[in-house]
Amino acid sequence: MDFPSYYNRLVFLVSGWIEEECAEREGVSLLDDVAGYCLSAGGKRFRPVAALAAGDLVGVSVEWLKPICLALEYIHTFSLIHDDLPALDNDDVRRGRPTAHRQFGEGPALLAGDLLFTEAFKILADMDVPPSARIKLVELVAGASRDLCHGQMLDISASARQGATLADVKLRHQKKTGALIEASVLAPTCLLGEEELRRFQPSLEKYARHLGLLFQIVDDILDRIGTEEEMGRSPGSDQRRATPTYLTVLGEQQARELAEHSAEEARSALRPFGERAAFLEWLIDFVLQRNG
Amino acid sequence: MDFPSYYNRLVFLVSGWIEEECAEREGVSLLDDVAGYCLSAGGKRFRPVAALAAGDLVGVSVEWLKPICLALEYIHTFSLIHDDLPALDNDDVRRGRPTAHRQFGEGPALLAGDLLFTEAFKILADMDVPPSARIKLVELVAGASRDLCHGQMLDISASARQGATLADVKLRHQKKTGALIEASVLAPTCLLGEEELRRFQPSLEKYARHLGLLFQIVDDILDRIGTEEEMGRSPGSDQRRATPTYLTVLGEQQARELAEHSAEEARSALRPFGERAAFLEWLIDFVLQRNG
Repeated sequence: MDFPSYYNRLVFLVSGWIEEECAEREGVSLLDDVAGYCLSAGGKRFRPVAALAAGDLVGVSVEWLKPICLALEYIHTFSLIHDDLPALDNDDVRRGRPTAHRQFGEGPALLAGDLLFTEAFKILADMDVPPSARIKLVELVAGASRDLCHGQMLDISASARQGATLADVKLRHQKKTGALIEASVLAPTCLLGEEELRRFQPSLEKYARHLGLLFQIVDDILDRIGTEEEMGRSPGSDQRRATPTYLTVLGEQQARELAEHSAEEARSALRPFGERAAFLEWLIDFVLQRNG
Repeated sequence: MDFPSYYNRLVFLVSGWIEEECAEREGVSLLDDVAGYCLSAGGKRFRPVAALAAGDLVGVSVEWLKPICLALEYIHTFSLIHDDLPALDNDDVRRGRPTAHRQFGEGPALLAGDLLFTEAFKILADMDVPPSARIKLVELVAGASRDLCHGQMLDISASARQGATLADVKLRHQKKTGALIEASVLAPTCLLGEEELRRFQPSLEKYARHLGLLFQIVDDILDRIGTEEEMGRSPGSDQRRATPTYLTVLGEQQARELAEHSAEEARSALRPFGERAAFLEWLIDFVLQRNG
């Protein structure tokens, strides 16, 4: 199977769903326009794709995965909008375009983030599945979002701190980036019955944890060596702010080794599923080799 | 019954619950400290008290009302923190103390708002009631929060707009203030069975709508005539920003008449419940006569 094409097909699918949502927003209010601008900016759609891939493995239908994918991308977009604000990272460019606050002003950007955040929960709560499944999803996503906030706070405190250890960097990255990636992989399992859950959950949890970790290490490497064109935003922001990263606490060689180790752990978690997990396995290489 | 004392007892109860939560946060992280600072700042606790009063009428136990009250106060506090930020109202004082961003910086304040927002949903999702009730609560609160965001956006756009009508002012206030007050009154009904719901919902919806409207009109009057000491924040902010209000579109006399009319509508909604709704009825006068 041609996995790169398959990934692109899934991105196309997710972006289509998002475009539908954006079309409904268009012209309704300035706030909807800001939210639409941020949602439609493209990007890798990695979290929805991970949810689709995991959902396919565990046998959840695409009809049910659609709202999950939207909610995940809304939460991710909310966190980017707020992170970019002058109060936090003060970034001017995101996905190759002016950040929301550069385009629309700080107030509208702040509120558009809040709006997407609350809409994510609304989408999950309104799903056409039993209440018990919906409430599990809300719990999972709310937990990951809480981690996001703590992770971003650790991020801004980290800039000013000396003597960060590997444990500090791990904790910060796990909360800021890992938690939502883990939630994306695990979200489809909220729709499973008890027996299927027992079959899939432990392996997928291990896979999700290591995929998230891998993602973070590669992020740190890219921040050091990536170009703005590849990344769609300014690289080197960690260095500018002197934020401790996997690279600064481990050095490049050891950081790359840790990435390889995480990739191997993620792969081993998928072994029980054999060929059926081939695309999830390819996602590991996608993360390992991505350049933006 | 001595309603003012009863109101104070309920505030004491809610503040006790919040203090328990704050004690658990203390020293855990800077972000928890910021959230605790904002939660423990006092205030009227009007939304939790309204939920307790409605919950008492419909027969929901306090054990179940507690998480609902916490979630409502978390959402309210989140919205105050974000509204106070320089990106929006740029206020220095809230409840007689420096606003979160004045005390801790903009980044921590922004993130503490996000944290309280996500924790509100986590609290509701974790409640010890059937999933169907929890999901109704999440839906109700997410809907009200979405209105909050739109209302605040209308608020910042309104400052710059000429020729606002009564309909504009109504819409903005309904979303910014009314929606969460309505949700507070209606939240306990999410725990009712179908038959009880049919009995209580239409009347409580009418009551909630008019109580919310009344609250907003009084807010506008207070913003013009209140003192900082009474309000715990700077009055006159609408005038400074030239925001259209009930006072500017109707004049003081007509605004006061509309307030009286809303109060009367709210009272009439309670009639079917007789004496059992006496405290809910008193809350109307509390709002009508409050001075902060």
